[in-house]
Amino acid sequence: MDGVNHQFRLAARPEGLPKRSDWEYTEEPIPTPGDGQFLVHVLYLSLDPAMRGWMNLTRSYVPAVEIGEVMRAISVAKVLESNHPKFAVGDYVTGLFGVQEYAVSDGSGIIKVDPDLAPLPTYLGTLGMPGMTAYFGLLDVGEMKEGDAVVISGAAGAVGSVAGQIAKIKGAGRVVGIAGGPEKCAWLVDELGFDAAVDYKSQDVRAALKEACPDGIDVYFDNVGGEILDAALSRLARGARVVICGAISQYNADGQMRGPSNYMSLLVNRARMQGFVVFDYVKRYREAAQEMGGWLAEGKLKSREDIVEGFETFPEALLMLFKGENVGKLELKVADG
Amino acid sequence: MDGVNHQFRLAARPEGLPKRSDWEYTEEPIPTPGDGQFLVHVLYLSLDPAMRGWMNLTRSYVPAVEIGEVMRAISVAKVLESNHPKFAVGDYVTGLFGVQEYAVSDGSGIIKVDPDLAPLPTYLGTLGMPGMTAYFGLLDVGEMKEGDAVVISGAAGAVGSVAGQIAKIKGAGRVVGIAGGPEKCAWLVDELGFDAAVDYKSQDVRAALKEACPDGIDVYFDNVGGEILDAALSRLARGARVVICGAISQYNADGQMRGPSNYMSLLVNRARMQGFVVFDYVKRYREAAQEMGGWLAEGKLKSREDIVEGFETFPEALLMLFKGENVGKLELKVADG
Repeated sequence: MDGVNHQFRLAARPEGLPKRSDWEYTEEPIPTPGDGQFLVHVLYLSLDPAMRGWMNLTRSYVPAVEIGEVMRAISVAKVLESNHPKFAVGDYVTGLFGVQEYAVSDGSGIIKVDPDLAPLPTYLGTLGMPGMTAYFGLLDVGEMKEGDAVVISGAAGAVGSVAGQIAKIKGAGRVVGIAGGPEKCAWLVDELGFDAAVDYKSQDVRAALKEACPDGIDVYFDNVGGEILDAALSRLARGARVVICGAISQYNADGQMRGPSNYMSLLVNRARMQGFVVFDYVKRYREAAQEMGGWLAEGKLKSREDIVEGFETFPEALLMLFKGENVGKLELKVADG
Repeated sequence: MDGVNHQFRLAARPEGLPKRSDWEYTEEPIPTPGDGQFLVHVLYLSLDPAMRGWMNLTRSYVPAVEIGEVMRAISVAKVLESNHPKFAVGDYVTGLFGVQEYAVSDGSGIIKVDPDLAPLPTYLGTLGMPGMTAYFGLLDVGEMKEGDAVVISGAAGAVGSVAGQIAKIKGAGRVVGIAGGPEKCAWLVDELGFDAAVDYKSQDVRAALKEACPDGIDVYFDNVGGEILDAALSRLARGARVVICGAISQYNADGQMRGPSNYMSLLVNRARMQGFVVFDYVKRYREAAQEMGGWLAEGKLKSREDIVEGFETFPEALLMLFKGENVGKLELKVADG
């Protein structure tokens, strides 16, 4: 196919927040799929906190993105040309197509999605990696039980907003979200049905959690780390489970990350803190997607995407995550479907 | 009974290491047991890291010791007078008799011990709370399996030295102890059968753990916290269990405790960090004591006590724990049995 493919490549390993100069904006001809391959046009590109970690050289659950490499990203895309028996022109798919407008794939790790069941952006949010992360983190790692007091940080984000709704659906006794600003907090309580919300920008989180969960926290689902993690640790109930899903407040820290100084609360409260990587649950995605798809159809689960337009704004759009500017799943719209 | 009972009472809440002036040395007549009570003479007094926590006002698993109260301590003692049907004059017992020479008890929480099965000091160490802590911490909380690479900090202490030996007996693939100084390290390897020892005073702990456990750490049993916890977290194997037993390096910290800045290793390695309190296992003490008693009798498990003489040296003897001066279980000998 004739035409130009734009890309963002990693130009330098960022210190702190990624700057424009950490990216190289490149232009290439649209690639041609070979035997057993297909070409896609990227429609929506997922902006995820994990991307910040992929830019570092430190040992992690996936290799670091190399300098000069197209930045790693998950997208929803449409098949434009195909030499692959299982993918036809016009199919919609999700996968790791990178931060670019067009990509060629051999189909590995690519999943077909149905735009009639849910809008395309939902497949990057509630029915995508963030939804799976919320589902397995809360129910499998956190072992949430009926009646539990559940607290979620980053609660207005893609993962947190789904985790809180799942907790309500599954019978949590109390679901409390921690988020920044009155608008997000109102959304959690008024639209998503959280029992309470704590605005970390204007409230004393520790005191607010004491009031919201007088008998302590049974499951704490942490997306942020830092002071908020410490505040939650100070309010654990006996036998609590702390789910370590992310630490967005620390990803851009200069120097050493801040560790939870209240970790001895794990001892006093016979509690555990456990990390997980959602890719380990890939064999159970279908099971979760079916259950969550049902809740979406019934209106029990609400999905919200925060969609920024324009491929070339990628560097600035990504920063919205770390500045807490998004509500719901942050995505970049690259092209019309 | 005529005579004088000496006591150490808490005079002030210490900042940092407890000073002489944080204690009040008092003298009272030996108490007289009432109906259903008995009088004991304390023979050996257990010096434990947990005592430092009991001196603070912060929320913990037991109430803080009040100012003016006799300091809490576990002892081995001998019954001198009895109005209790289940305890006879001449019986040997362990329990929370406090930092004093004589005490009256109604028998609650008191366990009889047999000096013919093991020397009396062993009932404060390997067959006492430290031994139970090692046993349930390693096997129950840490879920140690055959072949696991096990690393233990504070390995020359009362809990650590037993935990490492149990790991070997239960078929760990590799047992590595972290301790301070060449003497302790040699003892771990030469006498107790650890596979390797790391001297944190002279070695780079992170590098030494990498060499000792090239495939990562499956179970890390932490007694110390601080930098050593961070070093161990940096070397976890996938699915690792971090057992939080204590944090002796931090108990006397001025200001805030140091949290583990490498805690995101729990996420990358799908690992968990879990705390526990040995008192929760009281119903299973007999089971553990029988198994460990058998190992002691067979010579598979070696018990070592570090015994300081003289009741009046209590304040200085306690500090030996925090200075890392003891090898094995630190005890204060108060009187001959």
